[in-house]
Amino acid sequence: MGPGDDCALLQIPPNTLLAVSTDTLVAGIHFFADMDPVALGHRALAVNLSDLAAMGADPCWVSLALTLPEVDEAWLKGFCEGFFELAEYYNVALVGGDMTRGPLSITVTVHGSLPEGKALRRNGAKAGDGIYVTGTLGDAALGLQQQLGNIAVSELHQAFVRTKFEHPHPRILAGQALRDIASSALDLSDGLLGDLAHIASASDVRAVLKLEQLPLSTAMTDSVTQEQAWQLALTGGDDYELCFTVPEMHRGQLETALAHCGVKFTRIGRIVAGEAGVELLADGKPYQLDARSWDHFRSGI
Amino acid sequence: MGPGDDCALLQIPPNTLLAVSTDTLVAGIHFFADMDPVALGHRALAVNLSDLAAMGADPCWVSLALTLPEVDEAWLKGFCEGFFELAEYYNVALVGGDMTRGPLSITVTVHGSLPEGKALRRNGAKAGDGIYVTGTLGDAALGLQQQLGNIAVSELHQAFVRTKFEHPHPRILAGQALRDIASSALDLSDGLLGDLAHIASASDVRAVLKLEQLPLSTAMTDSVTQEQAWQLALTGGDDYELCFTVPEMHRGQLETALAHCGVKFTRIGRIVAGEAGVELLADGKPYQLDARSWDHFRSGI
Repeated sequence: MGPGDDCALLQIPPNTLLAVSTDTLVAGIHFFADMDPVALGHRALAVNLSDLAAMGADPCWVSLALTLPEVDEAWLKGFCEGFFELAEYYNVALVGGDMTRGPLSITVTVHGSLPEGKALRRNGAKAGDGIYVTGTLGDAALGLQQQLGNIAVSELHQAFVRTKFEHPHPRILAGQALRDIASSALDLSDGLLGDLAHIASASDVRAVLKLEQLPLSTAMTDSVTQEQAWQLALTGGDDYELCFTVPEMHRGQLETALAHCGVKFTRIGRIVAGEAGVELLADGKPYQLDARSWDHFRSGI
Repeated sequence: MGPGDDCALLQIPPNTLLAVSTDTLVAGIHFFADMDPVALGHRALAVNLSDLAAMGADPCWVSLALTLPEVDEAWLKGFCEGFFELAEYYNVALVGGDMTRGPLSITVTVHGSLPEGKALRRNGAKAGDGIYVTGTLGDAALGLQQQLGNIAVSELHQAFVRTKFEHPHPRILAGQALRDIASSALDLSDGLLGDLAHIASASDVRAVLKLEQLPLSTAMTDSVTQEQAWQLALTGGDDYELCFTVPEMHRGQLETALAHCGVKFTRIGRIVAGEAGVELLADGKPYQLDARSWDHFRSGI
């Protein structure tokens, strides 16, 4: 049963857990108020689906709470186009929502399903596991800095970095493929350094990253110095790639599983015993980052 | 599993449906920005629980997305006090959320459970059914008009109407008690006239209301004329009482069930065959309302 009554009614198959995640995007904080509404509709759903991807869940349903300064039909049409194109792609049904007047913001709640015991968690990393990420890192942050006028990106790469910021692709298939392979996982929303620290802390292990192994796009290496690239890759938010750890014994399965869903991935370090935290190595030597993470004030409650 | 990972994981018992509802409250639209944070925390959860009540569902879990102009510890403490006091009362667990910076607004998503086939819907009203409401009507609107300086309420009644606006009590127990008794139900959020029209439309029936039977508080009858009282009762929003229809054969059960949970209720009219809509009678004669519903721009999506 969909919208119309006071609640949506959802039927959950037996032996299945429901995975739920909520995110709010606020104009001026998480996106520019004049952002293309089609891109914004896509993005609002994508960042939430990314949380399902991080757990290995199958997307099922979504609620949308939209707050708008005024009813602007053209804007709404664009927003819905971006939102529902992605929703249809992953077969996610809109089951409810709310539309209110006020300063532009969007709160999306996604519901996914997971076979019992199969969730990818943050607390399973063990000493000896490899650390991996999907895709390339820092491109969304590069796109943002370019839009802010802080970094010049050559015309050749502008569409790419803009797309990485505006059209993130939630790694749903990769997350599902990792269910029986990864020992821990999360999605990169706030930046690799901070996000990986959550795995280290939840698993009580030490993560050692080899910076020269961080996957960087040509757009990145063409636009900034190596130091800047590492800074963006480590602390730039909004990549929505997956970061995950895999025991050595599952390494072969990993190659097969991610090749199967066509997702590029890179080993960027390993988990060791020791004080919980993240350690950076550049060419084998300890590396100190000038850490000014792009803080958009988001925090789990 | 609660907050910490990317999603909350919820286990739904077999043969149970999940009822989900989302509502956004925006400062300046749904509440005054300087509203007592304790009351606001209560209210933000209460209006969502009311949607579960309307379906007859058991409240289970809640997600909270909070957007604040700045981190104000004292305000947050108050908000959480109001929110969690009500959450604990109904044994609702916080399973996730998001905190962002921006203009003050609150989006709450509640999850409840329902035995299969037991949901109270809007489309089950039949000719011959009685129309009922819980509590008294229009008091929250009266409280709002008093705060806006449009209606004078004597000191004796000010605390009462303020409480009706700020501390609505979701009719959870009444909703559950009505599961096998009512043919349709919803909660009164936008005003009796508009909300009952939803039942009439979904059920394709005509609702005939007898205005002199509308339950009015002493605060109401002491503060305004009968015409004004009917106006507030019919079009004032935010009552969060239940409106429901009951077949004659269940009338006895109704008395017992609602007496059992201590909820006052009143028969205010009946369902007849005919063109879908709501008809008003005052002392048996057709009554025309000067209908200016208190529109807060809320609409189902």
